[in-house]
Amino acid sequence: MQTITQTLVKETIKKRATQTHKGSFGKLLIIGGNAQFGGAVILGSSAAVYSGCGLVTTATDPHNFTSLHARLPETMVIDFTDKQTIQTILKKVDGVVIGSGLGETPSSLEILQFVFQNIQANQKLIIDGSAIDLIATHHLVLPQAHIIFTPHEMEWQRLSGIPIKEQSEANNHAAQQKLNATVILKKHHTEVYTNHETYQLLIGGPEMATGGMGDTLAGMVGAFVTQFSDNETKSILSAVYLHSFIADQVGKTQYVVLPHQLIKQIPQTMAQFSNQND
Amino acid sequence: MQTITQTLVKETIKKRATQTHKGSFGKLLIIGGNAQFGGAVILGSSAAVYSGCGLVTTATDPHNFTSLHARLPETMVIDFTDKQTIQTILKKVDGVVIGSGLGETPSSLEILQFVFQNIQANQKLIIDGSAIDLIATHHLVLPQAHIIFTPHEMEWQRLSGIPIKEQSEANNHAAQQKLNATVILKKHHTEVYTNHETYQLLIGGPEMATGGMGDTLAGMVGAFVTQFSDNETKSILSAVYLHSFIADQVGKTQYVVLPHQLIKQIPQTMAQFSNQND
Amino acid sequence: MQTITQTLVKETIKKRATQTHKGSFGKLLIIGGNAQFGGAVILGSSAAVYSGCGLVTTATDPHNFTSLHARLPETMVIDFTDKQTIQTILKKVDGVVIGSGLGETPSSLEILQFVFQNIQANQKLIIDGSAIDLIATHHLVLPQAHIIFTPHEMEWQRLSGIPIKEQSEANNHAAQQKLNATVILKKHHTEVYTNHETYQLLIGGPEMATGGMGDTLAGMVGAFVTQFSDNETKSILSAVYLHSFIADQVGKTQYVVLPHQLIKQIPQTMAQFSNQND
Amino acid sequence: MQTITQTLVKETIKKRATQTHKGSFGKLLIIGGNAQFGGAVILGSSAAVYSGCGLVTTATDPHNFTSLHARLPETMVIDFTDKQTIQTILKKVDGVVIGSGLGETPSSLEILQFVFQNIQANQKLIIDGSAIDLIATHHLVLPQAHIIFTPHEMEWQRLSGIPIKEQSEANNHAAQQKLNATVILKKHHTEVYTNHETYQLLIGGPEMATGGMGDTLAGMVGAFVTQFSDNETKSILSAVYLHSFIADQVGKTQYVVLPHQLIKQIPQTMAQFSNQND
Repeated sequence: MQTITQTLVKETIKKRATQTHKGSFGKLLIIGGNAQFGGAVILGSSAAVYSGCGLVTTATDPHNFTSLHARLPETMVIDFTDKQTIQTILKKVDGVVIGSGLGETPSSLEILQFVFQNIQANQKLIIDGSAIDLIATHHLVLPQAHIIFTPHEMEWQRLSGIPIKEQSEANNHAAQQKLNATVILKKHHTEVYTNHETYQLLIGGPEMATGGMGDTLAGMVGAFVTQFSDNETKSILSAVYLHSFIADQVGKTQYVVLPHQLIKQIPQTMAQFSNQND
Repeated sequence: MQTITQTLVKETIKKRATQTHKGSFGKLLIIGGNAQFGGAVILGSSAAVYSGCGLVTTATDPHNFTSLHARLPETMVIDFTDKQTIQTILKKVDGVVIGSGLGETPSSLEILQFVFQNIQANQKLIIDGSAIDLIATHHLVLPQAHIIFTPHEMEWQRLSGIPIKEQSEANNHAAQQKLNATVILKKHHTEVYTNHETYQLLIGGPEMATGGMGDTLAGMVGAFVTQFSDNETKSILSAVYLHSFIADQVGKTQYVVLPHQLIKQIPQTMAQFSNQND
Repeated sequence: MQTITQTLVKETIKKRATQTHKGSFGKLLIIGGNAQFGGAVILGSSAAVYSGCGLVTTATDPHNFTSLHARLPETMVIDFTDKQTIQTILKKVDGVVIGSGLGETPSSLEILQFVFQNIQANQKLIIDGSAIDLIATHHLVLPQAHIIFTPHEMEWQRLSGIPIKEQSEANNHAAQQKLNATVILKKHHTEVYTNHETYQLLIGGPEMATGGMGDTLAGMVGAFVTQFSDNETKSILSAVYLHSFIADQVGKTQYVVLPHQLIKQIPQTMAQFSNQND
Repeated sequence: MQTITQTLVKETIKKRATQTHKGSFGKLLIIGGNAQFGGAVILGSSAAVYSGCGLVTTATDPHNFTSLHARLPETMVIDFTDKQTIQTILKKVDGVVIGSGLGETPSSLEILQFVFQNIQANQKLIIDGSAIDLIATHHLVLPQAHIIFTPHEMEWQRLSGIPIKEQSEANNHAAQQKLNATVILKKHHTEVYTNHETYQLLIGGPEMATGGMGDTLAGMVGAFVTQFSDNETKSILSAVYLHSFIADQVGKTQYVVLPHQLIKQIPQTMAQFSNQND
């Protein structure tokens, strides 16, 4: 396994060119958040916006529109059951994050399948939370796209069939090859499996063990792969690294780091890594 | 009476082990907040999340979902009259906080009784606010569980039958024995009655005399007893201590300390106490 | 005219006694905020809570419940057309603030009249904004209570019949005598007319000239007269003074001071004035 | 082209006179924000209030009322389809900002046309976002008013018919003359075309390339032209300058600057520019 390094992150977060506009930094559709789990999609959308994604649209249960906008006026909202609007937006975006707080009802399944039918081969597709379980339960066939899974160990067990205790590098790698997708296996010392290589994160601590941290990572990954699109693997690894790096920084003075606190530190931390490669 | 000391708190808030995940730090269900008193459950849920509880679900009047998520995306929400979902979640959690802003209508009573019927003997059950009054009014039989009451003096009078002026250590202790539950008697110099001992808090001041402080304590106690589960008494005493400790710190420069201000200081203060026992 | 001095404020904001609870520091009912002007009652309620009022209930249009709780979980909410609940709460509170954003519809008038019928002679009644205009338009008879009006110059013209240009101390005093109420006439160098004396404020600046500042003052006055109830005039003058004092402090570095920014400084500023009279 | 200078901004943001009230600093109606794009009008309204506009009313889809008030209690809200109330308010305001997140449905068009029919020749009318596209699509005739357009390059192409690559100073100036309105052409080095002169902004960077920045500028322009009404061109240029100046300041330590972060810095920055012309 290769270790994810600060050098890699610095190479990825380049200084922005001056002749750019919001469309230059990625357009992302985030789909998730039923009436019970709306917080998940609030966190994911916030993470994407604070990570510098140029334009974020959030497709969620309409019950979440107000709380989302009360926290994040920078996002646009649509009803996640409104297929026509989702289809329109799917044609314009560079990537999709689906699954955080989506739920596992027939309606959740229908939304996921609709995205699978309409995603394009050149788009990024981050699959998180409930969407991973829906795929495992219903044996869904993956679409043609740049797919990135973000399971924790139990979700990975359900998706790959590998029990947690047998989740060795070799077994995980074999399962990743079958999926033909990148896998971010969230755990103490998170591992990232790509088609070519396996990476390990050596930072991050137990101050991160709290609800919503995974949703936050999914939003960051979505923003990074659409914004730093010239190197997909590096953009994924950078999001994974910064997520834990910020938590460790905040965790020096906090017993637990809340996801929304982590999110607010993203712009400053990205600047630090970016400025170092002047 | 024994005095609650900083040493006790430091022994309780241990450094977190690295090989952990959000499930390692307690799963808590918080039930309360009717349409009028929604703020109570917002404060209690926030206190629990900021205290490091791994997973918090808030069962409340649906009118409170949006304001709760606007302040705290890290919690999950359910309708507190949805018995089926409450039952499902009750099977998974380590503890329940019930009563803050619950109200005393027939519907409130029904929710409380449903929890009493479904709580398990090994679970923690923190009973606060309206739930205390409902028990007193309707002479409810307590279920088998690790029960912790958080009354202020008037609520304790109603629950125990002891008039405020006669709430001596001996009388309170006798009443606690009959209840066979821990009692946190909130007052100037709060007292904690357990089956084995009586403790007194010597910190905390009148800057705390404002609405919502009790709801905040209930959420902290819920987070502490499920997170630091190897010593229930110490975890209770630590929550009680920190609640007043933070208020006194903030109160050095504020005439009144708002509960939501206290809550935001919890992660830093827990880190201070934790780091001191390196 | 007497000048309102810092000394007076320091004498008013006494250190809190230790043997107290939230009921010791005033119970206040704030009534206002129709669907259009909900912000007014959010600001007034926030000002009251941050001023240390022990228990605040906000009666408003239900459309405002969520935004209010999203900003201020420390308040309780009721529908301002729910007469039965208003009546119940009116029996328990020490004071009422009515009028900020109330509107001037028949429904607004009905609410105001209901409060006039149910207020008790020993209660404080702060009359602000729309309520002042309703009284002027409908020639309402004032109830027996400790009444405090908070008009700006145009509202005072409508209430007293004195054109702005003729609002001299003598004319204002005569009108105040007829009303038999305290009048806080908001203007550059605000004046306070009581039954016995006239006071003038020599601080406050144009950084305060923005929507919501008056609603904020009404909430502060409500909190001060119920909390520092041993001297009504001094408590009124202290609220008036601190409102402008804080604005001037914040205004040293801001071109305009938003009411919600002023509100957040209240607890610290009260502590400064309180600590100086050790 | 003339460069927009700090000196110009300092001359514009004069110290406020003491004998003033909220009506002295501009009354503004902001119209926009359908259910999907509510964030746009939250940002625009916030920008206007933080820029010192005395009284702001926001006409928007009622679904946005709660999120708006949760962030900004200082604004008043009305339903943007309520023609009667819009008409009443139009008679009182000094200016209107229309278009941010308005959408392009028949209902959006109807609102825009209603404003065009009721605006008065002496009022300022800032036309942003969807409203620009509606004018281009439906070939609307502009009303008599002080009109200011705030297009980005693509919107300008649609409005003027000039392809982005051909948007030279001469071509833009000719199109501006035909429109007989001020045009703020948002781009890297934003340009401002008035009837008499062309101005260029030499500050601002790619940290601003994120959704909501344009809505923020529209709100600032609305506040500046109604507040500093003695010199319309200077007030426009000052808003344009400060918008980018603040972003560049915050951008020194952040990789991306979120619009709501920029907005919170407006009062301090205006004070800096104002104090320098003591």
